[in-house]
Amino acid sequence: MTSSTSLLATLPGQYYTDPAIFALEQSRIFGSRWLAVARASDVDRPGRYRTIEVGGESVLLVRGRDGGLRAFFNVCRHRGARLCTEADGEARRSLQCPYHAWTYGFDGKLVAAPNLTNMPDVDRSAYGLVPVHLREWLGYAWICLADEPPSFEETVRDAVTGRLGDPAAIGSWQLDELRVGRRISYDVKANWKLIVENFMECYHCATIHPELTEVLPEFAQGYAAQYYVGHGAEFGPEIEGFTVDGAAGFDRLGGVDPGRDRRYYAITINPQVFLNLVPDHVIFHRMLPISAERTLVECDWLYSKEVVASGKDVSRSVELFHRVNQQDFDACERCQPAMSSRIYAHGGVLVPSEHHLGAFHSWVLDALA
Amino acid sequence: MTSSTSLLATLPGQYYTDPAIFALEQSRIFGSRWLAVARASDVDRPGRYRTIEVGGESVLLVRGRDGGLRAFFNVCRHRGARLCTEADGEARRSLQCPYHAWTYGFDGKLVAAPNLTNMPDVDRSAYGLVPVHLREWLGYAWICLADEPPSFEETVRDAVTGRLGDPAAIGSWQLDELRVGRRISYDVKANWKLIVENFMECYHCATIHPELTEVLPEFAQGYAAQYYVGHGAEFGPEIEGFTVDGAAGFDRLGGVDPGRDRRYYAITINPQVFLNLVPDHVIFHRMLPISAERTLVECDWLYSKEVVASGKDVSRSVELFHRVNQQDFDACERCQPAMSSRIYAHGGVLVPSEHHLGAFHSWVLDALA
Amino acid sequence: MTSSTSLLATLPGQYYTDPAIFALEQSRIFGSRWLAVARASDVDRPGRYRTIEVGGESVLLVRGRDGGLRAFFNVCRHRGARLCTEADGEARRSLQCPYHAWTYGFDGKLVAAPNLTNMPDVDRSAYGLVPVHLREWLGYAWICLADEPPSFEETVRDAVTGRLGDPAAIGSWQLDELRVGRRISYDVKANWKLIVENFMECYHCATIHPELTEVLPEFAQGYAAQYYVGHGAEFGPEIEGFTVDGAAGFDRLGGVDPGRDRRYYAITINPQVFLNLVPDHVIFHRMLPISAERTLVECDWLYSKEVVASGKDVSRSVELFHRVNQQDFDACERCQPAMSSRIYAHGGVLVPSEHHLGAFHSWVLDALA
Repeated sequence: MTSSTSLLATLPGQYYTDPAIFALEQSRIFGSRWLAVARASDVDRPGRYRTIEVGGESVLLVRGRDGGLRAFFNVCRHRGARLCTEADGEARRSLQCPYHAWTYGFDGKLVAAPNLTNMPDVDRSAYGLVPVHLREWLGYAWICLADEPPSFEETVRDAVTGRLGDPAAIGSWQLDELRVGRRISYDVKANWKLIVENFMECYHCATIHPELTEVLPEFAQGYAAQYYVGHGAEFGPEIEGFTVDGAAGFDRLGGVDPGRDRRYYAITINPQVFLNLVPDHVIFHRMLPISAERTLVECDWLYSKEVVASGKDVSRSVELFHRVNQQDFDACERCQPAMSSRIYAHGGVLVPSEHHLGAFHSWVLDALA
Repeated sequence: MTSSTSLLATLPGQYYTDPAIFALEQSRIFGSRWLAVARASDVDRPGRYRTIEVGGESVLLVRGRDGGLRAFFNVCRHRGARLCTEADGEARRSLQCPYHAWTYGFDGKLVAAPNLTNMPDVDRSAYGLVPVHLREWLGYAWICLADEPPSFEETVRDAVTGRLGDPAAIGSWQLDELRVGRRISYDVKANWKLIVENFMECYHCATIHPELTEVLPEFAQGYAAQYYVGHGAEFGPEIEGFTVDGAAGFDRLGGVDPGRDRRYYAITINPQVFLNLVPDHVIFHRMLPISAERTLVECDWLYSKEVVASGKDVSRSVELFHRVNQQDFDACERCQPAMSSRIYAHGGVLVPSEHHLGAFHSWVLDALA
Repeated sequence: MTSSTSLLATLPGQYYTDPAIFALEQSRIFGSRWLAVARASDVDRPGRYRTIEVGGESVLLVRGRDGGLRAFFNVCRHRGARLCTEADGEARRSLQCPYHAWTYGFDGKLVAAPNLTNMPDVDRSAYGLVPVHLREWLGYAWICLADEPPSFEETVRDAVTGRLGDPAAIGSWQLDELRVGRRISYDVKANWKLIVENFMECYHCATIHPELTEVLPEFAQGYAAQYYVGHGAEFGPEIEGFTVDGAAGFDRLGGVDPGRDRRYYAITINPQVFLNLVPDHVIFHRMLPISAERTLVECDWLYSKEVVASGKDVSRSVELFHRVNQQDFDACERCQPAMSSRIYAHGGVLVPSEHHLGAFHSWVLDALA
């Protein structure tokens, strides 16, 4: 009679392929939770806008005359034309629908509509753009498509605190002061949950991330930084910076504690943000699922104002995580086709160093329940 | 306590996106109503044929030895091979299936089938091509896929009379005598109902149709010609003809009453014909829906025999409505993506000058009920 | 009152288009029956492998160190990554998953997994590759995805015996000794059942196969070789070999009875193999359905070792059936679109010389019941 350690199961395969489950996720997760959708500085002047496709919706992010950032459904209240069709742009005085010229302020108010001006009994205030909840944090615009968003503290900030072990810790990196040094978009042919699972564990690091395990030797053991609260993986003894060849990076960011000087921290904020913190820069991933089998990932490399303003070469640090991204997304794409196999109907298994992925699976199941 | 004029709602967004509703429309509307599918002169000699994809079917339109026009399902009765796969062509003596050589006359009768000739007890008359109901009117072939078509008078002719206010009026343009001067096909990424709605209202004219409102200044007010029974929009005082720059067109068509000499009339024949009448030509649109989100539109510019035979340059009049078409279809394509937005679940709104679109929406809902 | 011979109906049109029926077929037919998926010699050395997409699964066919052929689901037991992504290749020592380095022997056993080596209480034997049932016959690898495969004798061998009339007859061609002289793949835009039906009848031969009916004149009468048990169609009097122009082929294969010297035999093994036997070669078709409307067909031309080794020109015999294939697949593609026509809702009809297709239709209906 053997008593073997049983390996935990992953989610059943259909969770990664079924369009009905994807639709439910779009509604219950991406349509209901706080999502980071753009860097606040992407829309840096009044009238500058971005359009973001998320949760089955097109969201219009625009900066107002008062300097405030706002988000709206990118849908004219009259007959539904897209107000803005470009991914980004700059409106002059207002947002005018190009179909029947209904015109909205950057604050969403309907300010003009042909033929309705001389109909004083039509309540124009009822036909402003429909707002989308918005918060700014870490220099990002976070939106929530739900009528009643969940607590930002509990669903976003607490995820960061839970990893760093201290609510003040994330402040050290002063993310809202940083600048985008490089942005790369990845179109991944895999379910978004495969990408989350991949990010959460390091059991694959020894196999597919030679550069990363060179910089962070403990990763070769297969235990992710996310495995322990407060733990940052330490750079190898010969390593001078978080770069593709271990060469020195830039000066430590102002607020970062010297005790974290040679450490790497990774944080997952469900459902779609990955945060990587190193002494001299921050790597911020945002995921936007397109279908059950395809996900867009946008990745920003953030540096100090000084580094970006001076035009210093950031390519060595960019190259390290760009390779990690490519290696990871290749692996996720390799898993996707098997999700529909009959032998994956009850999922795969998690080894002990992956058992914390079970918490993510529970989170998904709870959200869909 | 305010009492504001309420704006009528359009159809809910799902009516423009749901494949199940589209399938129902294909059956209850496009599979059941009279549809204009080709110019009768497109098949001008015995054996000339056209194949038309409509209502989920391939229809074969062919002219017989007796000069008569007939329509059949383009499906061999034996094992279902397409008899004709080209969009148009000319058969020599008969329509022969290229798979097993079952051979049909242009009247649809099975005239030969290998091995069945010496089986006198097989009733070959039971295996002729399945006919599709056909009518010729205004120089067009109108077909109906239903077993029992609705009244042509009530569903087609009455739509024209209802607009012009007089059953004899359409006769003035002698459409069956006209010739096709130009034909342009448009592949529109929008639901067919968005195209109908667009054609029915002129609230958008001031915004997107600069050339058209130059020729028809009253359109800048936003009231469509279709808004009033019998009304034709008047050409502007400087305008000499219905051309892109207002330059003179051709001689008034023979039968057109001088009182309509500087007028434009627009008629919608549900579900898929738009008719534009001006003194010297006629513009005839036929729509063929491909999916919930895609529609093929074929547009003919019709002129007198003399104009077409003489080779006169029709490009100035073609260019006017070709631009209108492009402007309209761009607008429709801009609305399509928002049809699936959660804030369009109950549709958009109609301003008073669009309220007659409500009749079209009722017509659709009745047809699907 | 007439009493006409009624023509048998084919399957209703939806059987050739409905994704739900296709999914049921993938499960009840392609996921449950014995299927020929590769020539055994395609994987001729230990470590050589093929991946085959069939029945909704990716199957890995690999030759072991012991020389034996085995098939597995091409899915890592850990997190589901495809073990091999190439159509064919050669593994060195083992099959290693490129994601987390779980490593399997060519016999499917889990031989190594990082971190699990020092966890003796994990039962590694429970995590070997999941085997797929495999049989070798006629030089082909036949697999069955079901947990409990049906009798190979009754479902495969008996189909051959039923046609040739003698269980020993197929042995004359010594198929496992033959070599692949040519392989051609066809991507056919038609339901797999249209391809089976086409192969089973010769009523179309006079219409679309001029070269074939030249070689086998009796085929011009429309009676397929499959119509009679034991019957082989005879070569025409001027015909010297089964070649595109009737020129002589190669020496009769060793075991073939002189009485079958100028004969052609065709056999269908449900659901996806067609076998054509002539004195000097064999043509072996394998079908792999991709969707309700698309099927991949792989066709091998097999010759004696001597013919292939000597490099003799096989193109005249290849060309004959390659043309037949193209002619047949064109015809099938021509039928596919009509399967969704309302007038094909109850199917088409079978003439008397096609009545044996009814047995195939019953077989399909029974399998899906």
